[in-house]
Amino acid sequence: MSYSISIERTSALKQKPDFSQLGFGKYFTDHMFIVEYDDGEGWHDARIVPYQPISLDPAAKVFHYGQTVFEGMKAYKDAEGKVALFRPFKNLQRLNRSNDRLSIPAIDEGLALEALKQLVTIDESWIPTEEGTSLYIRPFVISTQAALGVSPSEKYLFMIIMSPVGAYYREGINPVSIYVEPQYVRAVPGGVGNAKTGGNYASGLKAQEEASDKGYSQVLWLDGVHRKYIEEVGSMNVFFKLADKVVTPALSGSILDGVTRDSVIQLLKYWNIEVEERAISIDELVEAYRNGTLEEAFGTGTAAVISPVGELNWQGERLILNGGQTGPLAAKLYGFVTGVQRGAVEDPFGWLLKL
Amino acid sequence: MSYSISIERTSALKQKPDFSQLGFGKYFTDHMFIVEYDDGEGWHDARIVPYQPISLDPAAKVFHYGQTVFEGMKAYKDAEGKVALFRPFKNLQRLNRSNDRLSIPAIDEGLALEALKQLVTIDESWIPTEEGTSLYIRPFVISTQAALGVSPSEKYLFMIIMSPVGAYYREGINPVSIYVEPQYVRAVPGGVGNAKTGGNYASGLKAQEEASDKGYSQVLWLDGVHRKYIEEVGSMNVFFKLADKVVTPALSGSILDGVTRDSVIQLLKYWNIEVEERAISIDELVEAYRNGTLEEAFGTGTAAVISPVGELNWQGERLILNGGQTGPLAAKLYGFVTGVQRGAVEDPFGWLLKL
Repeated sequence: MSYSISIERTSALKQKPDFSQLGFGKYFTDHMFIVEYDDGEGWHDARIVPYQPISLDPAAKVFHYGQTVFEGMKAYKDAEGKVALFRPFKNLQRLNRSNDRLSIPAIDEGLALEALKQLVTIDESWIPTEEGTSLYIRPFVISTQAALGVSPSEKYLFMIIMSPVGAYYREGINPVSIYVEPQYVRAVPGGVGNAKTGGNYASGLKAQEEASDKGYSQVLWLDGVHRKYIEEVGSMNVFFKLADKVVTPALSGSILDGVTRDSVIQLLKYWNIEVEERAISIDELVEAYRNGTLEEAFGTGTAAVISPVGELNWQGERLILNGGQTGPLAAKLYGFVTGVQRGAVEDPFGWLLKL
Repeated sequence: MSYSISIERTSALKQKPDFSQLGFGKYFTDHMFIVEYDDGEGWHDARIVPYQPISLDPAAKVFHYGQTVFEGMKAYKDAEGKVALFRPFKNLQRLNRSNDRLSIPAIDEGLALEALKQLVTIDESWIPTEEGTSLYIRPFVISTQAALGVSPSEKYLFMIIMSPVGAYYREGINPVSIYVEPQYVRAVPGGVGNAKTGGNYASGLKAQEEASDKGYSQVLWLDGVHRKYIEEVGSMNVFFKLADKVVTPALSGSILDGVTRDSVIQLLKYWNIEVEERAISIDELVEAYRNGTLEEAFGTGTAAVISPVGELNWQGERLILNGGQTGPLAAKLYGFVTGVQRGAVEDPFGWLLKL
């Protein structure tokens, strides 16, 4: 099947930033993809155009009722200059699951993939190649109908923008200190915690700010019902190494089904390391820490890939993990996954989609 | 204290819609208010300008991370043509409580009130006078910094737009049928359920759609922890008349502190009707229904003021309230509150701010 995507190239390419000082999500490439939805007409007018502001009525539903979804994925360039996307199908499938939860009409995943390929190809010169850098890709849907009734929008925009990003941690990976959040709750079963929608991120800002004031990088979220089971760390999934096995919270409905989470589980099984997806209480972790079996903790997500945890603060008790250093398992996972991503390590799972 | 608000009047007034066919939030007045925020500079450039689209970078945080808050309030014109706002201070105070929860810098409530007064005065000809109609006012804040890091925005817009709205129910008030939601959850303590932020509304759309497919207007939300305590009805607070008293859920942290809720509680006390703010389980309501003491239920909110419930469907059992008709208490409350609002009934509480 072929998709019709019109292309308008920019007449003035932007000056590129210093690729050794990128940070995260600060600079955007020369072009963007956009396709519109109207009730009765479906998705229409798919196009790649110069990166530019969008103009919306101030009554557009996105400004009032938060009916949005998004995805995050990355493109890489290998040593030979070949471009690849990391598991884009997983992200597009999840985008449609998020759409369904937020009452947004489904995207044609074939069209979205074609748009991704064309957009990345057009802005290929924006893919940084320094170790740890990549081209971050942000597909997102916003509701644009200008009407204040609380109901699903009759109009949407699906867009893709792209940003060259630096290594999340300048020297590879470094452990972060995490505050186990006793007061605020991210999501609860029956809510939208397993959808990638703006409200989940807005609701976490306050806890993140307060943890930061206490000297912590992020919070570890506990579940909203029992206030004791582990959910996510910041906006990442989380794993714990307990002696001879690795545990991670099961997909309970209130946490995100992370693509990196899935990749890490696949990889652990490939390495014959036992991995359990199940409920994990903070009490279990504290006990494991005290008896010396909590060896490592790390977050997983598209932005940082693997983010080792050096400390957990639970009600004032500081649990220092692996001496506050990056653990061997986190380092091995980081090396393998980022190696596959940049084409330096063989890809046994077919994760890369080469363009 | 005086506030500097520049005014640019439109050069082409819009044609007004048929004021007998307004619906809700479909038409917008000739002007809008806007003020910008930048970190380090604070709120600046307050202005009233012709109603117009706004232009934002596609990376603006509002499109990705849902960092938004809003308010809803109304202006009325009495029989002599005098204009009044209903309890605007309450809404502006709540706006700042929502801002705090969403890590948005506080608005100057004095500036916002002055903006409201000037904007309503300029667009006074848009205030409909037919019974049940009003000018709906929508203050809102959106995060506009173009950056994909998950952190509070460094830039915001605070805007006020206005829409002439019809009677929520064409012939005064009519009872609605409500589906008691067993699966989806609106909010949970520790989350943002008590803030007026977009994500709370986005997360309710799916349940609302599914209830609608079953023939119900709205859902009655149960709490997310025990799944049995009453929270809200649709996007309104909810009250129940149980024999000789009225009960409404206490402000537990997961429901909105409604201005109409507060007005109704004040009024019930003024009428010497006992009112309790406390936890109410669905089991208690079912039992009260069965023994004949659940006499009425109604929602309260700015849009509909009082919305009587004619039926509650709980797990297939249909609880028909007051024979499916508007109950006497709901009717009396509706008559009094809307009477005060349009200047036809004396205002014993000082609810109206006359312009």
